[in-house]
Formats: sequence, C-alpha cells, structure tokens
Amino acid sequence: MRNFNQFTITDAVLERISGAPDPRIKEISEALVRHLHAFVREVRPTQEEWAAGIDFLTATGHMCTGSRQEFILLSDTLGVSMLVDAINHEAGGTITESTVLGPFYVPEPPEFSAGADISGGLVGQPMLVTGSVSAPDGMPLEDAIVDVWHSDDDGYYDVQSTADDAGLAGRARFRTDAYGKFHFWSIKPAAYPIPHDGPVGKMLQAQGRHPWRPAHVHFMIEAPGYEVLVTHVFVSGDQYLDSDAVFGVKDSLIRDFQVEPAGQAPDGRQVDRDYCHLNYDFHLKPSTKTASRAA
Amino acid sequence: MRNFNQFTITDAVLERISGAPDPRIKEISEALVRHLHAFVREVRPTQEEWAAGIDFLTATGHMCTGSRQEFILLSDTLGVSMLVDAINHEAGGTITESTVLGPFYVPEPPEFSAGADISGGLVGQPMLVTGSVSAPDGMPLEDAIVDVWHSDDDGYYDVQSTADDAGLAGRARFRTDAYGKFHFWSIKPAAYPIPHDGPVGKMLQAQGRHPWRPAHVHFMIEAPGYEVLVTHVFVSGDQYLDSDAVFGVKDSLIRDFQVEPAGQAPDGRQVDRDYCHLNYDFHLKPSTKTASRAA
Ligand SMILES: [Cu+2]
Ligand SMILES: [Fe+3]
Ligand SMILES: [Fe+3]
Repeated sequence: MRNFNQFTITDAVLERISGAPDPRIKEISEALVRHLHAFVREVRPTQEEWAAGIDFLTATGHMCTGSRQEFILLSDTLGVSMLVDAINHEAGGTITESTVLGPFYVPEPPEFSAGADISGGLVGQPMLVTGSVSAPDGMPLEDAIVDVWHSDDDGYYDVQSTADDAGLAGRARFRTDAYGKFHFWSIKPAAYPIPHDGPVGKMLQAQGRHPWRPAHVHFMIEAPGYEVLVTHVFVSGDQYLDSDAVFGVKDSLIRDFQVEPAGQAPDGRQVDRDYCHLNYDFHLKPSTKTASRAA
Repeated sequence: MRNFNQFTITDAVLERISGAPDPRIKEISEALVRHLHAFVREVRPTQEEWAAGIDFLTATGHMCTGSRQEFILLSDTLGVSMLVDAINHEAGGTITESTVLGPFYVPEPPEFSAGADISGGLVGQPMLVTGSVSAPDGMPLEDAIVDVWHSDDDGYYDVQSTADDAGLAGRARFRTDAYGKFHFWSIKPAAYPIPHDGPVGKMLQAQGRHPWRPAHVHFMIEAPGYEVLVTHVFVSGDQYLDSDAVFGVKDSLIRDFQVEPAGQAPDGRQVDRDYCHLNYDFHLKPSTKTASRAA
C-alpha cells in the first residue's frame, strides 16, 4: 500500500485499522477516519490552516489542568456534549431531563447534613433549595446521593479561584431522607461566561459568539437501580436562556427562584434579609443495567 | 433557542456560528460541526466513551512539548497529514512528489557548506548524499535552501535524545551551487517506530497497527518563485515500504542507497570503509503566489 492520493488515502487508513481486535474500537476508529477525512476534503485546508489546527489542539491540551478542562469546554461549545447527552438520555413521561455536566464538577464533594449552609462564606442573596428524588411514579427514593454545585454571585466557581487558601464553596453532597427529600442553604448563583481566556474563548470570538450561560444550579443524582441524572435547574427570566453558550437549556429545567421576605423560612431558619427559594422535584429513570456514575 | 434533541442540536449550533465575521472561519466551523455531529450520531458514544475521548485528547495535548508533537503524530497516523498534503500538492510531470513533514523538523537548522559531514558524531554506515534542485524543465536553481534531517542508526532523531548535552545531529541546511547542486556526508538512517510511548502509541496498539516507518531522509527545499517542497527519499527494499505507519510512501520517492566499497568517493573524500550513496534530483513546482515556507 503506497502512492496514496486524496481519493485513495481514506480506504488505505480504513484497511489499516480493519484488524483492530476490539470491535467497538474498530467501529469508532473507522467512523472517525471517514468523517475526519470528509471534513478535510470538504474544507481543503492549506498547510498553514492545518498547522493552525494542530496549534489550536495543542494549546487546548496545554490549557487543561486539574481544575480547568478546555476540551470539555470545546465539546460543550460545539454542541457535542449536549448531543452525547441527548443520545444517552431519552427522558419522556415524568422523568427529569438531563443536561451537560460542564467542566466544574468535583467528584466526591464534601457531604453535608440536611439543611446545611454550603455557601462557604460566599456573599450574595441567601438561597434555600428544597427538593425531592423519586421514581417516575412518584415513589420517594431514600438515601439517594444528591451532588450540587453552583457559581457565586460574580459567576465564578470555587475551583476557578487562584487564591492559595481557596477551599470548596457552593458545592456539596446530600442524601435524601425517608421521604426522598433534601434541602440546603447557599447563595443565589449568577449567570457567567464560560472560561474564555483560552483557545475556546478565541474560537467563540472568531465565530462571533458570546461565552455566557444563564444562571443555574448543577445537580448529579444517583440511586441504586436508577440511571445517574446529570442536570441543572435554571433561573427563570435569565437573559441568556435562549443563547446559552453550551446549548444546555430545556424548558422543563427552568424554575422561579421565588423571592421571599426576611423572617422565618420553611425549614425554621431565621433569615435577616430577603432570600430566594428554589424547589425542584426530580424523577429518576429506572436503569436497565447496573448503575454506574457518569464520568 | 432551547430544548435541543439529537436531531435539532446540529442546526442550533450552525445557526449560532452563522454570524462569524470571517467567511473562511465560518466555512471551516460549519463543516467541523456537521462532520463532528454526524460522527457522534453514527457511533452513539456512551458518556464513558465520551469521557475517554476527552481524556485521550487531553493526554495527547499534555504529551506535546517543544520537541514532541503528539497531535502531529495523531494527524499523521490517521492519514490526515497525507490527505492535506495531497490536496495542496498535485505533482504531475517531472515535479517531485511531496510527503508528510513529520514531527521532527527543526526550523532554521544550522547551515553547513557543501560536502560537510553533518553526522555530528553519530555512528553507522557512512552515507554520501548528492543531489540537485531544478525547475520542471531541468533549469538548475542556484542558492535554493535545502534542509535535511534523518534518524540515526537506531532510528532516533537528535531531538528525541534525553541526554543533557545532546546537540543537533543528522540535520543541516545547505544551499545549492550555480549548477543547482548540493552534497553532504552523514550516516545511513534506520527504519524507526514513531514515538509510541504516548496516547498515539496506545491508539495504534488498540487499532492493531505497528508504529514503524521505512528508513528515509527528509528534505525541505525552498527557492524564490517555487512552492516549498516537503518530502522524503526512502531506502529501497525496506520492509515497511508497504505499511508505513503514516502512509507517506510514494514509488517516485524510493531510491537505492547504493553501497560502494572503501576508497575515494566521487567528491574526492577518502573513506576507510564501505559507504552508501544516495542521489536524488529534485524538481520544484513554480509558485502561483509569493513563496511561503510550509509550517
Ligand atoms: Cu462526516
Ligand atoms: Fe455551571
Ligand atoms: Fe522521519
């Protein structure tokens, strides 16, 4: 096999990978080669454009650290993350819809007890979050794991802090009670631009796009026998609901973060200023296989 | 725009980038989104497979350093580099065919005078390289820049050395004389596996492929008014000519590296052991635009 031109090279590469021992790897590799070559044949990059592509991928890789995942941002902003999510999570009926994981999840966040304040000293409007986790028919799920994380009042996540003594804030794990319920306090998150000081930010700018996401609280919910639910709840009325930089908004995930006056909150807590209250009742999808945590 | 599913998300992303100010960036972005989404829709990755893809790209980026370009290796092994090369360099007639740049080129290599030994102390069979650079009609091109680089007798490039005091070796720049000619001495390069201790090596293994390239000498040749020629000359008879890991072999680029007995070489040099002699006469393609060095 030699003397390849632009019309014969694709079959040559496909032939070369035809002996891949794992059928799934073979399938994915073949599809990747076909679509990648079709893309290249369509746009006919110059050598300089090819080199710019190599440089873009390299810079994207170099931007990735323990707390910054630029390739997830790339996947998110190209709509790939939502596409993969849609392929894997057909909701329907009462089942809560899913959306992107995003780059700010921290596995095994610190566990708090019901009613805790997880704001970690963040300043902003107090937020009471109440909710429940149940099966599609409404049967409460006890001891479900509820991971939550959200941005601060300026739109930053704890893990984005560059301060030496920065700890986790606005991030916690809860477990549902016998009625499938959980609740906690934090501060109301703000809309935020995804980190756009790297290659993905440059790409958005070149594509004439803004980097903003509407304000939201992230949830990852897990219970034995059910599919892991990765979703957000968005703040109604946000100006970016129709132009989310990562295409993650669904109407069923939008809620009023109802403003309540200072005084005694539903959980008995005394609040000395106005606060907002989000309630969301999640319905998990029964799993057909052994539950496994979404990566 | 919200509530996207796997059938509507592609149009949503295309709509979002429809305002890209630069028409070429718009064109490339749109094609990328279409082919990338079609790839994802075809293979239907699980969340775990998507995460493995993110991890693969991240590891590939982290493998890139000043002297290691893992994304070029990825492009090479997926046949993309040869495809881009084929699109940009239609040879035909007497024009010398091109092939991949590879990851080991060093811009602005040290310039040597005609007949120099560029082996830099490498041990192996002495190699005399003679050649010429001319227009398609054979008119010699004086003062053309001829960059050469090749692996050592063990198949490694100088830039792959981890030794603290490692310098450049088997790498040089020459200029053609009034007859369009150049010549130099080095050692005969060996076949080599592309660097396969990183993510691309794992990919090749998973695809059931070997990482080897047939022995070759790289050339990059530049003359005003002509397209930059990036090519190799391969050693005839090499066992990997038909399974080059990067699909770069063309029959017109294969030459006998003729073994000659000890004694006086054609350039007058006295050689005390047998040596090999490669001659190649390069024909450049007239440029339609201002010459610019391939990246
Ligand atoms: Cu395609
Ligand atoms: Fe977020
Ligand atoms: Fe090489």
